[in-house]
Amino acid sequence: MASFVDHPITLASFAVIDREIGAHGLSQDLYAVVRRVIHATADFEYQSLLTASPNAIAAATAALQQGCPIVTDVGMVAQGISRMVQRTCQNPILVAVEQGDSPPPGKTRTETGLLRCTQQMPQAVYVIGNAPTALLALCEQIKLQQAQPALVVGAPVGFINVVEAKRALAELTVPQILVAGRKGGSGVAAAIVNALLILAWQAATQN
Amino acid sequence: MASFVDHPITLASFAVIDREIGAHGLSQDLYAVVRRVIHATADFEYQSLLTASPNAIAAATAALQQGCPIVTDVGMVAQGISRMVQRTCQNPILVAVEQGDSPPPGKTRTETGLLRCTQQMPQAVYVIGNAPTALLALCEQIKLQQAQPALVVGAPVGFINVVEAKRALAELTVPQILVAGRKGGSGVAAAIVNALLILAWQAATQN
Repeated sequence: MASFVDHPITLASFAVIDREIGAHGLSQDLYAVVRRVIHATADFEYQSLLTASPNAIAAATAALQQGCPIVTDVGMVAQGISRMVQRTCQNPILVAVEQGDSPPPGKTRTETGLLRCTQQMPQAVYVIGNAPTALLALCEQIKLQQAQPALVVGAPVGFINVVEAKRALAELTVPQILVAGRKGGSGVAAAIVNALLILAWQAATQN
Repeated sequence: MASFVDHPITLASFAVIDREIGAHGLSQDLYAVVRRVIHATADFEYQSLLTASPNAIAAATAALQQGCPIVTDVGMVAQGISRMVQRTCQNPILVAVEQGDSPPPGKTRTETGLLRCTQQMPQAVYVIGNAPTALLALCEQIKLQQAQPALVVGAPVGFINVVEAKRALAELTVPQILVAGRKGGSGVAAAIVNALLILAWQAATQN
């Protein structure tokens, strides 16, 4: 297998970010994730917003290496990871909202689709970049032991139920990468997964 | 034609943003764009980063209403606008990077694809959410009078050539919506276009 090499422009961008961040207390793997998110947003606040639970990155990269499926809440996140998936671990990608036709009254399509995904793939990597309702529904399934994700990326963005949904995730012991506060979004969620895919691929090609 | 109504959660989010922003000096149309970008990022800095050239929003909404094609640099931007396009003005969407196979040496796929798009659709709405090389190539075509876009959305993100590409756009008289500095991204670019599509649709349904 060929080792993964970023585009020269990406590497030059990383050098700028390294220089501006300077010394930091993050682990090498978490910094790889944080740096790719800052590269995708030009927002250095993500340095302090991003956290990973103990061993979450190691567990997630091992799962991704083995072809674990990835469930995203919306199509933009899937679009943002599809090229990197093709270049690395070839994981199947499922988009929750596309499974959410005919939601019951009061439920969003994303939430409805997410529940259908947990039934099909209870151990996938779950990536929420948009819909707090999907994250809340996922947390509920984890609490009920109906889902045991290899990782949850909690990065919905916004002003209504977002902080609450992230708090619900933080209270669970499931492996997780969390963006604190209101910030997040499809680009942020995709950057997190892309960083993990590269870590997984690098580990695989070093073995 | 049915008038456009946002989801209740979006409307509740807008109410939070309105309250937190308070008094502002933006025109009603520019504020509609700014607010949707803040909704997509939870980043209030966009209030001061986003500018529109005189009459750009009016010209762009008129063009979109008439079905003007939209060219995006990358797939994530297209993914982020496709549902709103379906719900409103049904504009054709073309993704530059998908037209960029076999780029000449030293050129990116996005830049190469962008040039092919300007040949096919010199008067489209051009939306750059990722690739500064695409924005620079577009600016060059405009200077050479090879393209006369109805609007350029200049929202590439990053650390290399991004500020320079935005400066090149700012120097042109083409109708433009610009995100100053390093920030931007696919989600930002998509939010700008979605806001314009709603303005276009609302104007059409009021006529």
